[in-house]
Amino acid sequence: MKPIKHAKGEVTRQAILEAAEAVFAEVGYAAARLEDVANAVGIRRPSIVYYFAAKQELYDAVEADIFASMHAFSETRTSVCADPFERVIALLDAWLDFMVARPTAARIIQRLVADVTPRHGDPTQFSNSALEDIEHVIAAGTEAGAFAPIAPMHFLNGVAGSVLFYVCNGGQIGESRRYDPGDPQELARFRALLHRIAAAALMLRR
Amino acid sequence: MKPIKHAKGEVTRQAILEAAEAVFAEVGYAAARLEDVANAVGIRRPSIVYYFAAKQELYDAVEADIFASMHAFSETRTSVCADPFERVIALLDAWLDFMVARPTAARIIQRLVADVTPRHGDPTQFSNSALEDIEHVIAAGTEAGAFAPIAPMHFLNGVAGSVLFYVCNGGQIGESRRYDPGDPQELARFRALLHRIAAAALMLRR
Repeated sequence: MKPIKHAKGEVTRQAILEAAEAVFAEVGYAAARLEDVANAVGIRRPSIVYYFAAKQELYDAVEADIFASMHAFSETRTSVCADPFERVIALLDAWLDFMVARPTAARIIQRLVADVTPRHGDPTQFSNSALEDIEHVIAAGTEAGAFAPIAPMHFLNGVAGSVLFYVCNGGQIGESRRYDPGDPQELARFRALLHRIAAAALMLRR
Repeated sequence: MKPIKHAKGEVTRQAILEAAEAVFAEVGYAAARLEDVANAVGIRRPSIVYYFAAKQELYDAVEADIFASMHAFSETRTSVCADPFERVIALLDAWLDFMVARPTAARIIQRLVADVTPRHGDPTQFSNSALEDIEHVIAAGTEAGAFAPIAPMHFLNGVAGSVLFYVCNGGQIGESRRYDPGDPQELARFRALLHRIAAAALMLRR
C-alpha cells in the first residue's frame, strides 16, 4: 500500500504548491495566508504544515519551482539553436510563452523585482538560473563578434523584462485599454516588437 | 497665528507622505503599518489619522502624488520638443530621470503592475496621466507618418517599462551583478539602450 499513499501525498503537495502560487501572485508574500491556500485546496491549515513547515518554506518551494520550470523549458528551446541571435530570440520566446501560460509566475517575479531586499538570504537563490541563461546567450554572441558588447543585466532590464509587463499589465491599464496577453494576434504583435528591440539592443553585426 | 499653524500642519502632512512612500515601496501595501510610518516621522499613530483617516487614504495620496509629479516633470521635458521622435525620447528620459531620483516611486508602480485587480475602484485613477502621456507622444508620431503604427500599450510594456526594471533591479540580481542605477556611466549606458529600443519599436521613418 505504501506507493499509493506516497503518490497521494505527492498529489496533495502539488495541489498545495499550485494554490500557493496563485495566492502569492495575487496578494504578495506579506498578505498571503496559509488559510487561503488550504481553502483553495480543500484541506485544513494543519495539513499544509505537514508538507511545508511555514509560509517562507512554502513560498521558497513555489519560487524554486517557477525558476526550475522556466530554465528547463528555455533549455528545450535554446539547445536546438546554433546561431547566437537565434539563441537569444529562442530564450526570449521561451520566457514569453512560459509567462503567458503561467501568469502567476510573472506576477511573483514582478513582485520580487519590486522588493528592496530579500526577505532572507540570497535574492538570486532561485532566480540565478534565469540570470545565467541571459548571461550565456549574450556572452556567446559577443564572443563570436555577432553582437556589440552589452551588459547582460541591461539586456535583462531593457528587453527581457518587458515580457513581465506584457503579461501582468493587461487588466491594470483601464477598461478602454484592456487586452488579453494570451490572444494570438496580440501575442504575435508583442513578439514581433520583442524581436525588434532585441536586435536593436544587440546592434547585430551581420 | 493661524498661517503658522497651517504651515506646520502642511510640513507634517508632507513628512507623513514621504515616510509612507518609503514604507509602501519597501514592503508593499498589505504589509505596510501606520505605526512604521509614524515612527519614521517621529510622531504617534493617532497623529497620522488626523491627516489621513485610514491606510487606503494614505496610500492613495502617495500614489496620486507620484503620478502628478511624474506628469508635471514630463511636461517640462516634452513641451519644448517639436519633432515626434524627440518628444518620445524626452518622455522616456523624463521617466528615467524621475525614477532614478525617486526609486520609491518605481517600486510602488512595479508593485501596482503585479496586482491582479485594484484594491478598490479604478486601477488607473492616478496612473491615467502617465498612460495618456504615452498615448499622446505615440499618436503624434504615427499621425505625422513618422512612426510605424504600434499599440501605445505595447510601447509602454516593451520599452517604457524597462525604466522600472533598471531602477528596481540593481540590488536583486546578486552581489557579483549589483549596480547603482544612479551611477552616471551606468545610467548613460542604459539611456543609450533605451533610445535604441525606442527607435526600433517605432521603426522610424526618416
